[in-house]
Amino acid sequence: MIGTVAVIGLGQIGSSLGAALRKRNLAKQVIGIVRNPARGRQAIRRGAADQCTTRLDALADADLVVLATPVRHILRILPDVVPLLRPGALLTDVGSTKVEIHRTVERLHRRRGSAPFSFLGGHPMSGTETAGIAGCDPDLFRDRPWILIPSSLCAPRHVRVMTHLVRSLGARPLRMNSPDLHDRSIAVVSHVPYLFSYALMASAGDDHLSVAGNSFRDATRVARSSPEMVLDFLLTNRRHLPRAARVLARTLLDLAREVDQGAESRLLRRICDARRRRSRLTAAHNG
Amino acid sequence: MIGTVAVIGLGQIGSSLGAALRKRNLAKQVIGIVRNPARGRQAIRRGAADQCTTRLDALADADLVVLATPVRHILRILPDVVPLLRPGALLTDVGSTKVEIHRTVERLHRRRGSAPFSFLGGHPMSGTETAGIAGCDPDLFRDRPWILIPSSLCAPRHVRVMTHLVRSLGARPLRMNSPDLHDRSIAVVSHVPYLFSYALMASAGDDHLSVAGNSFRDATRVARSSPEMVLDFLLTNRRHLPRAARVLARTLLDLAREVDQGAESRLLRRICDARRRRSRLTAAHNG
Repeated sequence: MIGTVAVIGLGQIGSSLGAALRKRNLAKQVIGIVRNPARGRQAIRRGAADQCTTRLDALADADLVVLATPVRHILRILPDVVPLLRPGALLTDVGSTKVEIHRTVERLHRRRGSAPFSFLGGHPMSGTETAGIAGCDPDLFRDRPWILIPSSLCAPRHVRVMTHLVRSLGARPLRMNSPDLHDRSIAVVSHVPYLFSYALMASAGDDHLSVAGNSFRDATRVARSSPEMVLDFLLTNRRHLPRAARVLARTLLDLAREVDQGAESRLLRRICDARRRRSRLTAAHNG
Repeated sequence: MIGTVAVIGLGQIGSSLGAALRKRNLAKQVIGIVRNPARGRQAIRRGAADQCTTRLDALADADLVVLATPVRHILRILPDVVPLLRPGALLTDVGSTKVEIHRTVERLHRRRGSAPFSFLGGHPMSGTETAGIAGCDPDLFRDRPWILIPSSLCAPRHVRVMTHLVRSLGARPLRMNSPDLHDRSIAVVSHVPYLFSYALMASAGDDHLSVAGNSFRDATRVARSSPEMVLDFLLTNRRHLPRAARVLARTLLDLAREVDQGAESRLLRRICDARRRRSRLTAAHNG
């Protein structure tokens, strides 16, 4: 059990984390730090925090501080957060890109000098398109990967604490060795599907929407996500995302040419390969 | 109420249609026509048909004949089906592309000469990735579009019969004026998402699969679909699909460039436009 946890930002992930910690009795106290007091009251009603405040300095009491706002907001508040951390505290985040956050924390850590703290980047792969506290769900993390990326600033003890905590939340802790590797993988498995959904929505006229079936709904569901959150992870993954998108676009053009040429056996091989590999994911719950 | 309905092919759509007709008492009798007798017995157990046979000539008794196999299989059996139709029968199909089916039926109709029948193409937009009779669900069509494309061979009375039937199944009948228009629209809203899912599965290595979250699952869910079905609609939409895929690929490249350049306001506008338009779809059930 952890002592006091401060969660900064009570969107879907932050509020679900607070609710999960409380439901499973994993922390003595959950403090929500929010910009808007009304959101704080709502969070308490939903069971996402024991108390809420708009004052950032409430994090000075916390053993674990979780940054749960959109990535660029995390980058903006880090210079205020780091000096407030109490010595020996563990700082983590749930941001969708990791390179810029790790780099910023490391810079601020050097500046702070003595009174060390631990930092370990995190990324629960469990968000849905229901933004904000409306998407609060203490079981959101169940059976989902939660990526953990230790930094040079993380005490080994804290890696164990965080791994154990993630497992206690029902998630599958998954260690990655570098923020760069994280951002490169996530560009493919998460960020490119967002770009495709925007491209598809842009191609589809109103007449198309009226005939949309399940394949269209699935392919565009992420287009419902919070624009602020998405913009932040797109713009903080400028190193890997454009390349990943270009690879996808090229493969799409290859497929278009194969359809054009009626290249039946090549298409069938691709379809069967994709299906076989996709079936491994289906073994986990809800398809 | 319709008299005897013959459903040729008891995959997900055919079996669900049979089950829906029986559950809602919309036909006197549903005959399933299948290649494999074991499949027929299974269909009867699932309530998808009153009786099943492997003999195509059972359709000679039907008032309504529904072609529910993959598109190219429909094209192959049409020359055997058309001569068997009894005069005044209504022929329809649930194929995912329409141009080649309409053209083939029209050619066979001319060859048949006297003893006219009606033909009206259909496409229920309700399939899921659960192929075959395992996906049988009498409520599959509920609140989903069911595209109807009358041909010059369709008696006006039969357009009304079919529209009424589709509505009785819980679906939303949606009339389109030409098979070509259908195939062009469906290339965008349905077939391109399949190509994207194959491209995405091909980009994602095994290390990527382990971190896949909901966006990846949604974007690749259609990759679970029956390869035979998919191959058939891809290869019978060679006129429109390659162009639609190229438009998507170009937009994806534009987006990649905007991310590269950090074109924040342009990206935000695209994200917000897509979100606003996607929210109209969400008004209907299940996101």
